Amino acid sequence: MTTTSRSVADICRAAREASTRLGSAGTAQKNQALAAMAKGLVDRAEWLKEENGKDMTAARAKGLSPAMLDRLALTDDRIRQMATGIHEVIALPDPVGEVEKMAMRPNGLWVGKMRIPLGVIGIIYESRPNVTADAAALCVKSGNAVVLRGGSEAIHSNSAIALVLRAALADAGIDTNAVSIIENTDRAAIDEMLVQDEFIDLIIPRGGEGLIRSVVEKSRIPVIKHYKGVCHSFVDEDADIAQAVAVCVNAKAHRPGVCNAMETLLVHERIAPAFLPAVAEAMREAGVALRGCPETVRLLPGTAPATAEDWDTEYLDLILSVKIVPTMDAAIDHIRHHGSLHTEAILTRDHSRAMRFIREVDASLVLVNASTRFNDGYQLGLGAEIGISTTKLHAFGPMGLSELTTTKFIAFGDGQIRN
Amino acid sequence: MTTTSRSVADICRAAREASTRLGSAGTAQKNQALAAMAKGLVDRAEWLKEENGKDMTAARAKGLSPAMLDRLALTDDRIRQMATGIHEVIALPDPVGEVEKMAMRPNGLWVGKMRIPLGVIGIIYESRPNVTADAAALCVKSGNAVVLRGGSEAIHSNSAIALVLRAALADAGIDTNAVSIIENTDRAAIDEMLVQDEFIDLIIPRGGEGLIRSVVEKSRIPVIKHYKGVCHSFVDEDADIAQAVAVCVNAKAHRPGVCNAMETLLVHERIAPAFLPAVAEAMREAGVALRGCPETVRLLPGTAPATAEDWDTEYLDLILSVKIVPTMDAAIDHIRHHGSLHTEAILTRDHSRAMRFIREVDASLVLVNASTRFNDGYQLGLGAEIGISTTKLHAFGPMGLSELTTTKFIAFGDGQIRN
Repeated sequence: MTTTSRSVADICRAAREASTRLGSAGTAQKNQALAAMAKGLVDRAEWLKEENGKDMTAARAKGLSPAMLDRLALTDDRIRQMATGIHEVIALPDPVGEVEKMAMRPNGLWVGKMRIPLGVIGIIYESRPNVTADAAALCVKSGNAVVLRGGSEAIHSNSAIALVLRAALADAGIDTNAVSIIENTDRAAIDEMLVQDEFIDLIIPRGGEGLIRSVVEKSRIPVIKHYKGVCHSFVDEDADIAQAVAVCVNAKAHRPGVCNAMETLLVHERIAPAFLPAVAEAMREAGVALRGCPETVRLLPGTAPATAEDWDTEYLDLILSVKIVPTMDAAIDHIRHHGSLHTEAILTRDHSRAMRFIREVDASLVLVNASTRFNDGYQLGLGAEIGISTTKLHAFGPMGLSELTTTKFIAFGDGQIRN
Repeated sequence: MTTTSRSVADICRAAREASTRLGSAGTAQKNQALAAMAKGLVDRAEWLKEENGKDMTAARAKGLSPAMLDRLALTDDRIRQMATGIHEVIALPDPVGEVEKMAMRPNGLWVGKMRIPLGVIGIIYESRPNVTADAAALCVKSGNAVVLRGGSEAIHSNSAIALVLRAALADAGIDTNAVSIIENTDRAAIDEMLVQDEFIDLIIPRGGEGLIRSVVEKSRIPVIKHYKGVCHSFVDEDADIAQAVAVCVNAKAHRPGVCNAMETLLVHERIAPAFLPAVAEAMREAGVALRGCPETVRLLPGTAPATAEDWDTEYLDLILSVKIVPTMDAAIDHIRHHGSLHTEAILTRDHSRAMRFIREVDASLVLVNASTRFNDGYQLGLGAEIGISTTKLHAFGPMGLSELTTTKFIAFGDGQIRN
């Protein structure tokens, strides 16, 4: 059952083998395995907490920050959340087998596209042990085998969770290698994983920018990544001020530590004298500290001045940089140079300017008159997501079950040949 | 106008800059540029042939094979074909701006997906100079800038074609760097191109397996590739024999030198005694040489025996390997081990076996009762293609205009915030 002593290549090869059978498993069987996973996690909560305790002890000895320790900790509540997350995946429709765009060609050949699993997905992640269960559930539901490589700080927790998940697969008659874990915590194990292009179809790194850049540099396997979210809201000259204030406060302060939180507020110079005092007051009430361009500081005396660095910073905190721009072109230009292709919003009552912003701004989600916080799989109607991609290829934005699949062409003929 | 003296990084950076404006260019302007490209190629045919003459002289001096020389040669007819190809691209619908799946969320937010260009596409190719025009036309129509890097043997031809294309862009008011060419013929220039992940979004290599493997190994940019096409037809026990013979001869002999030609024929043992003599006779008439498994040789005395290597060989020639299998499972298993995810066909009258083959066989096109030759952009209804991908990510099968784009999420609200 354990994979400790196996080489990375062996683990990946076995996952590939398991993927061919999982790929043609029916929805009922996959949901049965998922239900067993959820039950297994709850049933073995005491043991999971014990194993997590080993990681917590080591982490405390290493002097990890309280924030890191909090991310690492498994509690009854978090274990229940993992189980609930798996039940949410059970409730989502199975994308595999869906046929799109079936149509008859002039020669009578029926041609369509059938949705199929990608095959084997490699997940490289840091700290939070819940990723082990969340990612495995999404991969299994979409018919993919998964090879998990978590951080060394969570090794006992991740291994314990994977053991429970694998037992659930066995209960449902699915090859346990469909959920595999690399327990070798050397960096070299990641390097070895990244050259298994024969066995792994896609790598999804989840973690800090350093981890992601190093994965992109070394991988021979396609990588879908998300570096960071430097998201903007642009308050246009004729925005509804009360609405814009409410939306901007939500975008910044609802949950500042996530990638779809607003980091920079761009304000049209014509609306700035009326809008800025209102938004500044509301932001202050929400505990947000402002850093302004010189014009902003002039309009809001006492505001800390922004440095050049601020415009490229993902604060992930109750801090907001504010810039006054002379035109919408200047706003779009600022976003082009400082945005991260993640989430961009305009607040305006002008239809043609709204439509131009939608067309011209390059980001995985572009919004009109709504909070950047909506860039999320559930909010956009995809269901649970494995991450938000800022890579344009294959999936741009939240990656749900459907984005973990691809399509093959299928054709039904009655003897068609080419002349 | 020329790019000779500029560094690879400069060329790629300028292409990125050009791509942002091309991305929001309208269909009319893009079509105008394409029409000017087609006209420019025909108008400057004499000069293109002169420049091509330099490549031909060098190639003859190097002792290139007649087949290679033929691929390299530009004739009036081939120049007209390039122009015709561009007019076919003009006639295709523009995928950019298409909005899919627009729907209202429970909170009243309208969410949909808008099709947008990928950005900058790098094409690395060998010999045939027509790729320069074909690839550039598809990229421009889909709103992408393109960085072309052809082989050293075609450098004068490719540079001349690119110069004509760039002049056409200028005529249509489009930044000429939207079609860029790297004229440095050192291998090191390819290596430099493959690390420009800041400026290039996708690499498409077109050439031999060696080139493609080396690109995959070195690239930090996602690569969509096609290694080879080892395509099979499986003649099931109850196939319509006359139909199966006609389809198999078409699959093998219609155009043996292309990737969607059949390379191996799998025959169910129950139909082999009746089917094999009929297909062997028809193949002989089409000039096809057979290589058989021992059972085949027993049923068709005088057939050359196949070696283990034959089952993995893309002949690209009038040669066909033939294997008798005891069951459909054995056929599917053979395809799993020797296929190349390209094109696989079953010939059968049995509905449930046809549907099972469609579901279980892993290839970019799976056909029932039709020739493998249909794996082609035009035949499947996509129009002109830039290649056939055997990579599952993003595009699996022929890549037409739509596959050169991606989608971003768009959302129209009236003040929605998250609670």
